[in-house]
Amino acid sequence: MSIKNKLIYGGDYYPEQWMDHPKILEQDIQFIKKAGINLITVGVFAWSVIEPKEGEYHFSWLEEIIDRLYENEISVMLATPSGARPKWLAQKYPEALRVNEGRQRNLFGERHNHCFTSPVYREKVRKINTKLAECFAGHPAVAFWHISNEYGGECHCPLCQKAFQEWLRKKYGTVEKLNKAWWTRFWSHTYDSFEEVESPSSVGEKSIHGLNLDWKRFVSDQTIDFMRHEIQALRDAGAKQPATTNMMYDFQGINYGKMAEYLDIVSWDSYPLWGKKEDVRIALDNGMQHDYMRSLKHRPFLLLESCPSATNWQGVSKLKKPGVLMNASLQSIAHGGDSVQYFQIRQSRGSSEKFHGSVIDHYGGADTRVFLEICQVGRTLESLSEIAGSDVHAKAALIYDIENRWAMEDAQGPRNDGLYYHEAAFKSYQALKHCGLDVDVIDMDQKLDGYQIIAAPMLYMFRSDMEGKLREFVKNGGTLIMTYWSGIVNETDLCHLGGTPHDLTDVLGLRSEEIDGLYDWEENTAEPAAENELGIVRPYTGKNLCDLVQLKGALALMVYGSDFYAGRPALTKNTFGNGTAYYVCADMEEAFYRDVYKKICERAGIQGLLEDVPEGITVNSRENREYQYLFIQNYGQEPVRVALPEGYEILAGEYEGAVAAMSTVVWKRRK
Amino acid sequence: MSIKNKLIYGGDYYPEQWMDHPKILEQDIQFIKKAGINLITVGVFAWSVIEPKEGEYHFSWLEEIIDRLYENEISVMLATPSGARPKWLAQKYPEALRVNEGRQRNLFGERHNHCFTSPVYREKVRKINTKLAECFAGHPAVAFWHISNEYGGECHCPLCQKAFQEWLRKKYGTVEKLNKAWWTRFWSHTYDSFEEVESPSSVGEKSIHGLNLDWKRFVSDQTIDFMRHEIQALRDAGAKQPATTNMMYDFQGINYGKMAEYLDIVSWDSYPLWGKKEDVRIALDNGMQHDYMRSLKHRPFLLLESCPSATNWQGVSKLKKPGVLMNASLQSIAHGGDSVQYFQIRQSRGSSEKFHGSVIDHYGGADTRVFLEICQVGRTLESLSEIAGSDVHAKAALIYDIENRWAMEDAQGPRNDGLYYHEAAFKSYQALKHCGLDVDVIDMDQKLDGYQIIAAPMLYMFRSDMEGKLREFVKNGGTLIMTYWSGIVNETDLCHLGGTPHDLTDVLGLRSEEIDGLYDWEENTAEPAAENELGIVRPYTGKNLCDLVQLKGALALMVYGSDFYAGRPALTKNTFGNGTAYYVCADMEEAFYRDVYKKICERAGIQGLLEDVPEGITVNSRENREYQYLFIQNYGQEPVRVALPEGYEILAGEYEGAVAAMSTVVWKRRK
Amino acid sequence: MSIKNKLIYGGDYYPEQWMDHPKILEQDIQFIKKAGINLITVGVFAWSVIEPKEGEYHFSWLEEIIDRLYENEISVMLATPSGARPKWLAQKYPEALRVNEGRQRNLFGERHNHCFTSPVYREKVRKINTKLAECFAGHPAVAFWHISNEYGGECHCPLCQKAFQEWLRKKYGTVEKLNKAWWTRFWSHTYDSFEEVESPSSVGEKSIHGLNLDWKRFVSDQTIDFMRHEIQALRDAGAKQPATTNMMYDFQGINYGKMAEYLDIVSWDSYPLWGKKEDVRIALDNGMQHDYMRSLKHRPFLLLESCPSATNWQGVSKLKKPGVLMNASLQSIAHGGDSVQYFQIRQSRGSSEKFHGSVIDHYGGADTRVFLEICQVGRTLESLSEIAGSDVHAKAALIYDIENRWAMEDAQGPRNDGLYYHEAAFKSYQALKHCGLDVDVIDMDQKLDGYQIIAAPMLYMFRSDMEGKLREFVKNGGTLIMTYWSGIVNETDLCHLGGTPHDLTDVLGLRSEEIDGLYDWEENTAEPAAENELGIVRPYTGKNLCDLVQLKGALALMVYGSDFYAGRPALTKNTFGNGTAYYVCADMEEAFYRDVYKKICERAGIQGLLEDVPEGITVNSRENREYQYLFIQNYGQEPVRVALPEGYEILAGEYEGAVAAMSTVVWKRRK
Repeated sequence: MSIKNKLIYGGDYYPEQWMDHPKILEQDIQFIKKAGINLITVGVFAWSVIEPKEGEYHFSWLEEIIDRLYENEISVMLATPSGARPKWLAQKYPEALRVNEGRQRNLFGERHNHCFTSPVYREKVRKINTKLAECFAGHPAVAFWHISNEYGGECHCPLCQKAFQEWLRKKYGTVEKLNKAWWTRFWSHTYDSFEEVESPSSVGEKSIHGLNLDWKRFVSDQTIDFMRHEIQALRDAGAKQPATTNMMYDFQGINYGKMAEYLDIVSWDSYPLWGKKEDVRIALDNGMQHDYMRSLKHRPFLLLESCPSATNWQGVSKLKKPGVLMNASLQSIAHGGDSVQYFQIRQSRGSSEKFHGSVIDHYGGADTRVFLEICQVGRTLESLSEIAGSDVHAKAALIYDIENRWAMEDAQGPRNDGLYYHEAAFKSYQALKHCGLDVDVIDMDQKLDGYQIIAAPMLYMFRSDMEGKLREFVKNGGTLIMTYWSGIVNETDLCHLGGTPHDLTDVLGLRSEEIDGLYDWEENTAEPAAENELGIVRPYTGKNLCDLVQLKGALALMVYGSDFYAGRPALTKNTFGNGTAYYVCADMEEAFYRDVYKKICERAGIQGLLEDVPEGITVNSRENREYQYLFIQNYGQEPVRVALPEGYEILAGEYEGAVAAMSTVVWKRRK
Repeated sequence: MSIKNKLIYGGDYYPEQWMDHPKILEQDIQFIKKAGINLITVGVFAWSVIEPKEGEYHFSWLEEIIDRLYENEISVMLATPSGARPKWLAQKYPEALRVNEGRQRNLFGERHNHCFTSPVYREKVRKINTKLAECFAGHPAVAFWHISNEYGGECHCPLCQKAFQEWLRKKYGTVEKLNKAWWTRFWSHTYDSFEEVESPSSVGEKSIHGLNLDWKRFVSDQTIDFMRHEIQALRDAGAKQPATTNMMYDFQGINYGKMAEYLDIVSWDSYPLWGKKEDVRIALDNGMQHDYMRSLKHRPFLLLESCPSATNWQGVSKLKKPGVLMNASLQSIAHGGDSVQYFQIRQSRGSSEKFHGSVIDHYGGADTRVFLEICQVGRTLESLSEIAGSDVHAKAALIYDIENRWAMEDAQGPRNDGLYYHEAAFKSYQALKHCGLDVDVIDMDQKLDGYQIIAAPMLYMFRSDMEGKLREFVKNGGTLIMTYWSGIVNETDLCHLGGTPHDLTDVLGLRSEEIDGLYDWEENTAEPAAENELGIVRPYTGKNLCDLVQLKGALALMVYGSDFYAGRPALTKNTFGNGTAYYVCADMEEAFYRDVYKKICERAGIQGLLEDVPEGITVNSRENREYQYLFIQNYGQEPVRVALPEGYEILAGEYEGAVAAMSTVVWKRRK
Repeated sequence: MSIKNKLIYGGDYYPEQWMDHPKILEQDIQFIKKAGINLITVGVFAWSVIEPKEGEYHFSWLEEIIDRLYENEISVMLATPSGARPKWLAQKYPEALRVNEGRQRNLFGERHNHCFTSPVYREKVRKINTKLAECFAGHPAVAFWHISNEYGGECHCPLCQKAFQEWLRKKYGTVEKLNKAWWTRFWSHTYDSFEEVESPSSVGEKSIHGLNLDWKRFVSDQTIDFMRHEIQALRDAGAKQPATTNMMYDFQGINYGKMAEYLDIVSWDSYPLWGKKEDVRIALDNGMQHDYMRSLKHRPFLLLESCPSATNWQGVSKLKKPGVLMNASLQSIAHGGDSVQYFQIRQSRGSSEKFHGSVIDHYGGADTRVFLEICQVGRTLESLSEIAGSDVHAKAALIYDIENRWAMEDAQGPRNDGLYYHEAAFKSYQALKHCGLDVDVIDMDQKLDGYQIIAAPMLYMFRSDMEGKLREFVKNGGTLIMTYWSGIVNETDLCHLGGTPHDLTDVLGLRSEEIDGLYDWEENTAEPAAENELGIVRPYTGKNLCDLVQLKGALALMVYGSDFYAGRPALTKNTFGNGTAYYVCADMEEAFYRDVYKKICERAGIQGLLEDVPEGITVNSRENREYQYLFIQNYGQEPVRVALPEGYEILAGEYEGAVAAMSTVVWKRRK
């Protein structure tokens, strides 16, 4: 097939919407080929066409399309249709529809409005997946399985309540253990049996953090279990192609780390808000997600959805300026992705995404600005084929953990008006990228082996032996940068007694005594301590949260500049074993992170891909056995001079000492 | 009766609230007469007094009041009481209460909280209306029927679901046609029968635009059907007086164009926010509504409700400054109204509108500032009696369509943060008024015959053969000004294929290729093209939406000043047949509309009522067989000099070359 | 016991959360003693531990704790556990859970989620209270009963509907009277029987102000009745200790004036937002609440809860800067409180208040900044023991009435965007404090005897013969300052006819004719009238509401500066009997209140505790038979010089002509 040893270029396609327009279907293939697209996704949301009546399956139309694509040397990613159930299923099996947190059964409608616990729904999905696999698992065009679509949401029906209670029983064994873990004597919330536990609700209980947290875990686990059930049906029917499901940007509903275990390849849907802020900031934020997705399996991922033009469901449907589509597409490759895929090939005529950008729009001509840029991306991806399958070897890791987030953002205090976890993680990420480093974005379940530097911002919850792994990492010579509001609670959100950051006070050489919340309009400063080791010379402002620490061996590199804690440590350093542990006490401004991380890397001898990363530029690398590939992207409106290390040759793009505005240059170098 | 050949001066009156205060009732008549009021509305919300127990009707109190009014030469507008049902009805017939969109049956309470489908409710209303007509249809005081009050709202009960399904069956014939029209294969939302369709709900389906749109149409139709049912009951019982119902400002719940067909006379309730912005802007905005109401039947309308003082349910209950009441009252007349009516004659002592301004307030004296101004308005209306019944003959029309709005504001994209349809329409309206023109505000169902200039802003949906009518209009020599985001979808919100504005690309000489959404803080400019025909010399700023068009024969009169589409057309002109079609590409600032419309009118030789309309001034005219009447209103705080065409004599107000601050002058001229 | 003749120093303690940590329990007693704490509250929310299964009572753990405390000379405040019901109770008796206003029965969870009407819940509470009293009423350590916890909330279940209907029947006698009082003919809302009345609901009736108001009264009465039921159970079982329940800051849910009648001592929970604004403003606002609480019974109150550090459920968990805890604690004493009590002794490890500040935190050491300050407060309170039991004798009263607020804020108009009742009351309070006066904050049910000056801002509703009492007060020589929007309605929110402020137009020498609402961005000014008696020389700005009055004998001391009512009175004065009545026409700026009240006091010869109260300083006094105690608190960041009257000696704090930054000095003087 055409996609072997190639970067994938593709998109979601809904021929079932156009079956009474055979000419359009005909024409679409021409557009697809012209654009250089080599993989088409079909079947997403097609349930009502595949099985219009219960047990009555219609596959011929789909077979026809897949055959046509195959004839045209285009591979297929085949989706299971469970992203939306047909009306007849909802009518006949009301249990398949979700119950909301207010305990009302939903009506039919929308997308993921079905209960992942429901035996009937699982059975119906199993059947249709089985049929799909029986029909298409052997088809030479089919290269991937796309499992459902953007899993998410939760159901509070009686079946889910029961499943949740069983989940808890399995986790805790006895209800006494649950009561202790959730600290239920507070407000007399003690449970006498697992059967008494109800999911959190605005008309019931919302204040037991342990309950809220375990419910989120259960919902995530139940969703993953459903996905496994879907995949199993395919496998049982003989499907051997790799399976993926499309994840979403910074999605809070699922622990993707756990989900990824059951996928053959990770993929995600990326819709950055280009133009809303400086594009390089948008790119870095999106890059952090790319790195997160890649780090889930430490293998190439797919960019399963992206938009070639304006995205209709965003607040403002902004056009992509010339060059943005190319840069956005190549960013996926730069961060370790092996594909660029669009939602969608042809714009629907009706319903809620009819104005979503697409390869072919309502006008239907090939002479549009957007289509011409799409063709250009196709050619560029073709020219980068050798990169397919190569890896990213990161020296740096950022710990960014969804369960930590669930717990931290639900726990009341120390700043209900905003903790800014994502922003804190992004500040560290941005600073590491500014050092010219490839960065893995990992959760607490991952190993820390092989990294030289680890940023650990706001690790409120220590789980999966985070404290033990960080201790080892530093002892063995690593550089750790931890921040305020870390090591506060255990896995069930119970506060650690005896001093925090829990079990790392010796590693960090300090104990957090109090943490001050600042109003939105307040700020403090960190002032350099005289003759501090890092040679910091200027003050930086901090906001939101200020940790007051007692030093137990660490050195204060910076101190607070104002309030009653002026003069107390704002940045500390401690030597532990062969390594070094820094502690950032306050929610400092971005410049602090960028400057201080740079100095920390210099001092630790950690080298970036470029000596210096100019403003507006991003740098990434991939490597295979023979070559290292270097991606330099300019997201600004002006060309930027970039001093390249020796030994590189250009693989794509243009370079005469500078990278042109809004453009990408790819180099390679034999290792 | 006293109101023949007179302008009506009146108000809503609730004697039933004061039946144990006979002296107050006595006194009220004196106040009414003193104010020059000649029409009193009674019966609104009086159901619980008229029929305190099921089938037990009490009309004597009402008869007494009507007799008293008649004796005092005051006419009566008699209301059907269906605006609020009595408690016994709700208790006995729960089906009469509405079910909200979350599918919960309402409790008793508020006003329009009854199901317009409910057979029981319809029957109870039929009975009481029949009784009312039997009692009062022959009473010489009764001049009008006021049907219910401010119809609105929706019900999702099983009866309404059924009625909606029947409505759809009637419209589409087969469910296959419905599926195509709603594009239901998107997200597998195909229906197998009409019986499966459910009304939109936040606990069900909200994303099928075709469903949402047809639901709005159904709700509107069902409301109108209910109103017809009410009127029929009166007619069957022998009532012959004209019937009206009070419409509301920019109301989104009903297609008033359809409703007006079944009314003898249009009326509406006007509560402008005087003092919130420059008063002339408030006046123009309110004037656009007056024109909309008049244009519904192209006949004089009634100002059924207005407030003589502060309106209690607004965010800020602002007093009317001296002169505002007079100007606001005469504005109704200026725009083709034949009445000034107040809510309310006497302030209620309790409940939610007890602080609503009124002719007689809680204090109860005739020596208040407000009452004195009310008397003055009465005298002025008396002096303008000859104007009653005269028409407005507008050269200009603004197309402003409720179904277009329903569709456009529900469709996701291109700017969910705000499309500003009303604002866009207002910019065109204001510009036409600034040209000194009388303006009809019409929807797409109306004919375009007789107009010289038509503004067609944001006609996202073309329905009722809009494209055909506009084509004819231009071909026959008319001047059309269309804007961005027009001609995108058909009547069921399906996107037109092959280029937009649909079927008018030749008339406009262009095709819209892409549309850019701008963030709130962004703007672009339109720069005059060199030697443009209109002689535009300065740039103007635009925001929100920028259409990128490909010219197909049109001339670019202005071009964008920035972004990647700098230099592309921002304002175009095309000659088609005997007429001219302009296209405004972006959401331009008001000054653009005012200046450009002025130049367009000049070029097309379209003359206004005044050569020049000064800032702060509004101009309107009415005419009967013999005379033309000219209304010039000054809404500013300073006198304004106005150069009057020849041949006019003053009918009301004072003029010595200038119109005094916050005042009105009315002239007449023999035709 | 140790607390006789002492100020109480205490806190809430939850040993039941730590029963498997005997060492912690051991240690806690040491902390408590070290801090100087002499009263410990136990039992709050302990139901699930006391009665883990229905009818199975476990008191031994509680007895052990109380014995331990007693051995250590620490008294006990014993709580009834009804603040949260155990799970088994909710499971077995669903009627015990509340029904929300949308008519949905709540699930188990949160705190006050139980129906105060439910016979079953009442019976269960009666039983456990009886048991508690049987066990502990005779224990020598038990000094107080703490009834439930922070009563609040409402239930709309069928039992409550029935109880509401009975409440109404008792109040009105006949449904006709109810209909008149609620003015139900408006919108045909007439009730045919009490059984038809339903509580206000967003899915039913929200617009009958009389209904809304009586519902609030019923909810308040029902809560109080439940509290009485709780206390009765204790008394019936032989408990003789005084009973209190903890009230809350500016709480809208209960008429505390009525509640206090059934309490032996008033107490409240105070959590000021120190640091959010200037601390002296925070202090004054909190002081107004202290004064309100003291004035409920005109006897010393308890500060039942306060936070020694950051409060986790506030938007920002701000640390208390050094000195704030001491000042905040002594403020309670300064305003007539006899205690400083904390929530909580030991921080819980889990659930929603785990980050709430406490005497002992998760770290668990005695070497924290917070604990050291807590010890210091303990020592200071010890040194002030002689003040315990002394009273406050205020010359000034501020009328601040909850029923007035309920009615005014529900009534639509004259400014739905904000009436600012609390702010208006605070402006008067602040001004009186600035005059150096002790102030009672009283509701309309209280007597006015003994005051020299009364501020009566925004008394929209006159109830409890407010007009009669104010008339007497002025006639007998008092100084009254009334404002705009007073005397508008009667007790059932029916508007007074014939002129307002109702029945006081002669006392004030004016009638309010109209009231203008101003937009947020608008303002007017009050300009001094020439040679006005008070010698006011500068203009002040006013916002929001401007009353236009007709003088009927009063003098205009100031007049409006702009708008059409420029020159009309803005501040008036009238002599009536032996007294003087001022009327403030508009919502004036704070400086107006401070300056004008000062001048009014001077003119009336009303003397403050200090000649002059400097910026940033608060002054209060208490007295017993022999001594007067003077509290001067500096809430600023700089020392402030204070000129002290003669005869005082220092009881606590340091003073050398100035009071140090953020500190308190207490003086005493023999009377």
